[in-house]
Amino acid sequence: MKTLIKNGRIVTAADEYVADLLIDGEKIVLIGAHLDESGADQVIDAAGLYVLPGGVDVHTHLAMPWRGVETCDDFFTGHRAAAFGGTTTHVDFSIQAKGGTLHEAVETWHAKANGKAVIDYSFHVAITDLTDSVMAEIAELPKIGVTSIKMFMAYKDSLQVDDMTLFKSMQVAAKSGVLSLVHAENGDAIEVLIAEAITAGNHAPIYHALTRPPELETEATSRAIWLAQVAGDAPLFVVHCTCEGALAAVSAARLRGQHVYAETCTQYLFFTKDALNGTADDPFDGAKYICSPPLRETSDSAALWRALRTGDITSLSTDHCPFTYAEQKALGRDSFAKVPNGAPGIEDRLYMLWNDGVLSGRLTPSRFVELVATNPAKMFGMYPRKGTLAIGSDADIVLWDGAAEHVVSAATHHSAIDYNLFEGRTVQGKPVKVFVRGQLVVDGDNLMAEKGSGAFIHRASPLLL
Amino acid sequence: MKTLIKNGRIVTAADEYVADLLIDGEKIVLIGAHLDESGADQVIDAAGLYVLPGGVDVHTHLAMPWRGVETCDDFFTGHRAAAFGGTTTHVDFSIQAKGGTLHEAVETWHAKANGKAVIDYSFHVAITDLTDSVMAEIAELPKIGVTSIKMFMAYKDSLQVDDMTLFKSMQVAAKSGVLSLVHAENGDAIEVLIAEAITAGNHAPIYHALTRPPELETEATSRAIWLAQVAGDAPLFVVHCTCEGALAAVSAARLRGQHVYAETCTQYLFFTKDALNGTADDPFDGAKYICSPPLRETSDSAALWRALRTGDITSLSTDHCPFTYAEQKALGRDSFAKVPNGAPGIEDRLYMLWNDGVLSGRLTPSRFVELVATNPAKMFGMYPRKGTLAIGSDADIVLWDGAAEHVVSAATHHSAIDYNLFEGRTVQGKPVKVFVRGQLVVDGDNLMAEKGSGAFIHRASPLLL
Amino acid sequence: MKTLIKNGRIVTAADEYVADLLIDGEKIVLIGAHLDESGADQVIDAAGLYVLPGGVDVHTHLAMPWRGVETCDDFFTGHRAAAFGGTTTHVDFSIQAKGGTLHEAVETWHAKANGKAVIDYSFHVAITDLTDSVMAEIAELPKIGVTSIKMFMAYKDSLQVDDMTLFKSMQVAAKSGVLSLVHAENGDAIEVLIAEAITAGNHAPIYHALTRPPELETEATSRAIWLAQVAGDAPLFVVHCTCEGALAAVSAARLRGQHVYAETCTQYLFFTKDALNGTADDPFDGAKYICSPPLRETSDSAALWRALRTGDITSLSTDHCPFTYAEQKALGRDSFAKVPNGAPGIEDRLYMLWNDGVLSGRLTPSRFVELVATNPAKMFGMYPRKGTLAIGSDADIVLWDGAAEHVVSAATHHSAIDYNLFEGRTVQGKPVKVFVRGQLVVDGDNLMAEKGSGAFIHRASPLLL
Amino acid sequence: MKTLIKNGRIVTAADEYVADLLIDGEKIVLIGAHLDESGADQVIDAAGLYVLPGGVDVHTHLAMPWRGVETCDDFFTGHRAAAFGGTTTHVDFSIQAKGGTLHEAVETWHAKANGKAVIDYSFHVAITDLTDSVMAEIAELPKIGVTSIKMFMAYKDSLQVDDMTLFKSMQVAAKSGVLSLVHAENGDAIEVLIAEAITAGNHAPIYHALTRPPELETEATSRAIWLAQVAGDAPLFVVHCTCEGALAAVSAARLRGQHVYAETCTQYLFFTKDALNGTADDPFDGAKYICSPPLRETSDSAALWRALRTGDITSLSTDHCPFTYAEQKALGRDSFAKVPNGAPGIEDRLYMLWNDGVLSGRLTPSRFVELVATNPAKMFGMYPRKGTLAIGSDADIVLWDGAAEHVVSAATHHSAIDYNLFEGRTVQGKPVKVFVRGQLVVDGDNLMAEKGSGAFIHRASPLLL
Repeated sequence: MKTLIKNGRIVTAADEYVADLLIDGEKIVLIGAHLDESGADQVIDAAGLYVLPGGVDVHTHLAMPWRGVETCDDFFTGHRAAAFGGTTTHVDFSIQAKGGTLHEAVETWHAKANGKAVIDYSFHVAITDLTDSVMAEIAELPKIGVTSIKMFMAYKDSLQVDDMTLFKSMQVAAKSGVLSLVHAENGDAIEVLIAEAITAGNHAPIYHALTRPPELETEATSRAIWLAQVAGDAPLFVVHCTCEGALAAVSAARLRGQHVYAETCTQYLFFTKDALNGTADDPFDGAKYICSPPLRETSDSAALWRALRTGDITSLSTDHCPFTYAEQKALGRDSFAKVPNGAPGIEDRLYMLWNDGVLSGRLTPSRFVELVATNPAKMFGMYPRKGTLAIGSDADIVLWDGAAEHVVSAATHHSAIDYNLFEGRTVQGKPVKVFVRGQLVVDGDNLMAEKGSGAFIHRASPLLL
Repeated sequence: MKTLIKNGRIVTAADEYVADLLIDGEKIVLIGAHLDESGADQVIDAAGLYVLPGGVDVHTHLAMPWRGVETCDDFFTGHRAAAFGGTTTHVDFSIQAKGGTLHEAVETWHAKANGKAVIDYSFHVAITDLTDSVMAEIAELPKIGVTSIKMFMAYKDSLQVDDMTLFKSMQVAAKSGVLSLVHAENGDAIEVLIAEAITAGNHAPIYHALTRPPELETEATSRAIWLAQVAGDAPLFVVHCTCEGALAAVSAARLRGQHVYAETCTQYLFFTKDALNGTADDPFDGAKYICSPPLRETSDSAALWRALRTGDITSLSTDHCPFTYAEQKALGRDSFAKVPNGAPGIEDRLYMLWNDGVLSGRLTPSRFVELVATNPAKMFGMYPRKGTLAIGSDADIVLWDGAAEHVVSAATHHSAIDYNLFEGRTVQGKPVKVFVRGQLVVDGDNLMAEKGSGAFIHRASPLLL
Repeated sequence: MKTLIKNGRIVTAADEYVADLLIDGEKIVLIGAHLDESGADQVIDAAGLYVLPGGVDVHTHLAMPWRGVETCDDFFTGHRAAAFGGTTTHVDFSIQAKGGTLHEAVETWHAKANGKAVIDYSFHVAITDLTDSVMAEIAELPKIGVTSIKMFMAYKDSLQVDDMTLFKSMQVAAKSGVLSLVHAENGDAIEVLIAEAITAGNHAPIYHALTRPPELETEATSRAIWLAQVAGDAPLFVVHCTCEGALAAVSAARLRGQHVYAETCTQYLFFTKDALNGTADDPFDGAKYICSPPLRETSDSAALWRALRTGDITSLSTDHCPFTYAEQKALGRDSFAKVPNGAPGIEDRLYMLWNDGVLSGRLTPSRFVELVATNPAKMFGMYPRKGTLAIGSDADIVLWDGAAEHVVSAATHHSAIDYNLFEGRTVQGKPVKVFVRGQLVVDGDNLMAEKGSGAFIHRASPLLL
Repeated sequence: MKTLIKNGRIVTAADEYVADLLIDGEKIVLIGAHLDESGADQVIDAAGLYVLPGGVDVHTHLAMPWRGVETCDDFFTGHRAAAFGGTTTHVDFSIQAKGGTLHEAVETWHAKANGKAVIDYSFHVAITDLTDSVMAEIAELPKIGVTSIKMFMAYKDSLQVDDMTLFKSMQVAAKSGVLSLVHAENGDAIEVLIAEAITAGNHAPIYHALTRPPELETEATSRAIWLAQVAGDAPLFVVHCTCEGALAAVSAARLRGQHVYAETCTQYLFFTKDALNGTADDPFDGAKYICSPPLRETSDSAALWRALRTGDITSLSTDHCPFTYAEQKALGRDSFAKVPNGAPGIEDRLYMLWNDGVLSGRLTPSRFVELVATNPAKMFGMYPRKGTLAIGSDADIVLWDGAAEHVVSAATHHSAIDYNLFEGRTVQGKPVKVFVRGQLVVDGDNLMAEKGSGAFIHRASPLLL
């Protein structure tokens, strides 16, 4: 099957030009001027459209259990939403059970994806219980295509690891071609602040933000950076960086030459902690915005936007971690501390960044592509198969109408979640067609993919930028 | 005329993959797997070679007058050397004569290039005498394809401008789509230090470095940055950044979100000011290394290398400004202050950065391409025509043997200069064939281009990264 | 004549304790518990009062000519105001006339003070025209008791010096035991901004602030610091530091070990540039607040307060430079650019800092004394004669009622100026009696000193902190 | 009993002047010119000598148990050494036993001091086991004169506390007028590095330094600072700050206005980690220099010296923690990990700082006094009783011969330790006589004090600088 995409404006992390592109089977095989249509099975005229590599979202939580509930998107509904947003590959977090092995964690997540996937996917593994045998497992992870581990510095008494675990994990990861990821917040201090808030009767959603102040993210980010340095300049990827202080620590490390990288997530660019105050009608509406780290201040968002341009933020993810408002967030109606932590966003990433980043002039289209596709693919060992438009790469392609205006709404989005953080915003930029490995998965408003058509991506070691 | 390059490893600022590439006339028209050879006039097998965009060197001084002498490379010998080094486009500095106009300066430089060029070229214009009519000229420069101006903060009583000139120039440049470049050293203090050295009888080449300490570059860099900020965030490009302090000022500005960029030049990555002490046999050998700003310390070089990777340095240039050792540098045998300022390097840039940057693991091949070709083309308004391998771009192409070992020497290089800073170093990486707009200009050891075949590039406004 | 002050709370930069203090003639001769009253000519009970060293204000402009007018306080009215505010010594700026000598400048200022002084005084000299003979004069200044020079980096075409003058002056000062002071604003850029504002018809007082943005103070402060470093770590005292950026440059230099010091002035702690907008009734009221550098933002004031405590600001001055509102400021009714630059404050310094610094808990009483008396005396070569309460020191003493509430007003202050920046503020802290060299000069609301009783202080080289 | 000290050069943190000083009983009662000798019981001519307040050393470990041994100085030999060095007050660390109370710890240390003390003393308490009842105890500590607590961030599985303990302790301390002290090194990572060194067979003393790299101190210092900020700007005193990175974190916090203070200790100013390599004759000699944090690099020492002058280091202590070389250090002959951690220095502090600080011109005598006496007395709630020469203060006085040359040696020092870090150095500066509360305790080479004459100092809350 050969598909010829004609006259589109091709964008890569480096380039932007009008040309034709030919897909043969699952791969991109030809890019050129005025390609011959004769051999193509189908010809698509992309005049006036951008031709983008499919988005790569390296921070999602589909079907993730959390204190008795589970995120409301499984690998089908989550993938469907991703695809409609222009994301064709994601990396989800498999989480070691206490007492369990890393391999079991990965197997458990494979089972979640099996038969449901409509985009491509891979897994990180989060370490929660480091024994000698788990240490040995880390070094073996690349064999099963898992080349990134995550350590939580927050969530005391559940996911949180101590510094010894963090440090030893980084050491072995550095030697094994595995990237170390951290959720950087000081869980010990947060635990104290939460207990104090509860004791004081402060239960409203805003206390989620007030009990997780940015200083505690700055601290933990700084700590992870220094530990990574001592662990042999272990490559470190700081997930969901949200505040100026943490960003300053990342920048300083990069200036020193350390292999430190950071992502931020869409919501931190658009909202402040004021959102947690809810609405006049519904104070609990703030619970929709409960995610960790919490939303910050306008000055923090501004700093993140600057770093997206100048390079100290390497990529943009979503931390898609959807809990329904009506049923799941509602579990915390009597206290913020019981509200499931997480916010949705897997579908909104590309158009939000396009609208406020590219159309505003903050980012070039190439930098946009670098942030949402190329850099995450490189950092997570999926390049050149994923993340770009190059000969031999997977034909994960988004035909993007950069001017199409649409209104974001839970009524029309494709996740199972019952709300959308960006509800009611009119934005420009939208996929017209989305291909995964040459197959059309989204065509306008229609999902074309079969359940189970998405494939697991066996990842290589990170390509360190 | 169609040329098919087969099986090469194509590298852009974003990508790296094996494919075939077809040139039709002056342009790249097709990139793909297993392209049909039938329509090609010639087929070149590039298996085992890299296919790189031709280098873009935005900092050169060919046929430049300097206190009664002239740099020893004209637009033919300089271009020849550039081409053999893999550079296919350069931007030279035309310099306003006191009392003259900017347009006259550009015309003068056009005359230097006419009939001699074998690679493509363009011009900046250096402002030395800012009158109201010159202010008006700045706004008109884009019409003649000149979209960058340079102000010297050093060379008191000759090239140096005062802060009022600097500031006003930046203001009008910012409004006119023109990029402001600065040579950032405090010329006032340097003038005092030079006079003191001379009075004290300190004439050896090393005093060139000692009278231009890094603090004075840090100061001037910081000054230019703040003035650019007040001038409406005027885009600022700091040429030949050499030291940690100046780099820190650039980094801080970028973190604040200012549109500040810096280049460094090859020599600052490889030598320290110790080189100015000369050799045991010939203390005056140090004069070969007299350039401004001077060579610095090992810690400065290390900082520059780090910033090449992490992004605070945007591109690598040469500041090729060749004066022969035997005759021209010799004018300063009795005092460093009379030594013509400048060092050669137009031919050495790519292989030196490849050898010590890419092969050492400091830089990916893509980052290499970004530094020597893509970013300078973008920053100086020549993209997408120059600086990349994309459909529709000029077929400025280097077939690069990344492993070819060779010894750098004045005996074999192609500049008119009688010495080479890297004399005797064995390095890997070398062009096998070089094309300019589809024409083969270098084939192994042979120059294939006709004099005058190089073209002036009418530049657009900078694409601000 | 012996005066015994009993039961007061003595405060020095180090200490705070209750004791008796005996003055014999002009000197402090005894401090102790329960001193014998028998030998004293007079005994003053200071129970409940603080006994402070007299304030030292090293930044004033009395009887200073400025574009055809003169500051409205001469050495009598200015001294009277100072004395009522608890300041017993000041250092005024004598200013070199273009073409004149430094010694002539000092002589001119001596003539202004002669016969009028009621507190002690000394002079800096501002260099405006640096010739070789003036260079020679700098080295001779200590012989006439002048150990500080000032260079203006602003006021293009009048007071401003170029960097060569600045640098050479610093060099010779460093070798001569003379402290270099700078007014750090980039006058070149300011001149352009002022001209633009005028051209645009922007004449209101607020444009004074808008044409002197903080970036231009940060720039100049940084420049002076780097030049001082290259000039042999020439001791540098940055006058009227007003903004976070400049302060950061000072802090960074101090951390590097450079001998850099900064003062701020009272007004920068209390007002923002909003004051230049005037009042609803009188928009031109903003002219009262026109001083250079201009008032800044709340965040800048906050940074200055922090640095007063932690040490990166060495002392507090007033930059008392009074022009009457009714007649002198009014010269600029049609344009901010014609408003005489300067604000009054010589009387207000101690109680404003006491009220908002000590009583608020920001500063200890000892740090208060250090900032207003001890450090300026040390930095300007008047210690131990001035600036402290120690055996052998001049008996410059303020009996201070730390709780006395009073309302600041031009109606009751003692300067010739017709307005007070702090008009209407109720503050605590006030001198009850003030002694200069053992003589009572202020007693409650009465001036007790004779005109001409104040003495010139022949200053030694700075005691570098 | 009245003692008159005549003609000495009195130095306080603010002042320096020649005067007479009268002691009556335990207190200073009079300072003045030419005091009457008639009422004095004894008159001492201090002409040519400095009269200094007795040194205050807030970081010592006398009779401290450590893995089965005990530091070799008890409260008699340690005090004797202190007194001969000019230190008249110290604060020792009482350490909570696991399962024990803080009050028991203080009681245990009282018992160690009882009947032995010859100088004055007080106690901090180190928290090792934080329960709710211990939390309650912290708030009660001021009642027993203990106003500082210490938390160890190193020594995993023995003294180390987790971040929750650290944070909660800071919170309660902040509310109780208690100062929080931290030993800032990341004990988790250190533990891993030590285990790795041992596994690798790296047992020499130098591995003590190599397993405790400065990054781990920088990290922990930064962590403590951020936690203190979130704990309500809890006043934080970082003990034994040794490296540039940690110092930078302290400086940044101070610039932000946080109440953060740091001390360094004498050895860090004079030695680098090279000392741990031992001598050619005796490689194990390096064990003498094993203390934690370890000795660093020359650049670190230089930074500490700079900060002593400019203020980011608040005071100088010794961390006197003496283990004999012959017997105690020897326990670790087969491995650095078994060498008791600690170095002596209680006697050497004043003359080492005088010789290399004051005589070299780095510090004024006043700053010297501030660092070794006044600031520690203020920060630890003993001012104005201790730390200065003021009316009403304890007559803790050192008559100091600033020029007396002597050779430092274990053969002549007064501690029980069998080596001296400064062995063989010729230095200037030495006490001639030392008084504690008016009693002569050292007279030349003779100890005049009776055992048990030293008194416990019931401390008030810190006077925050």
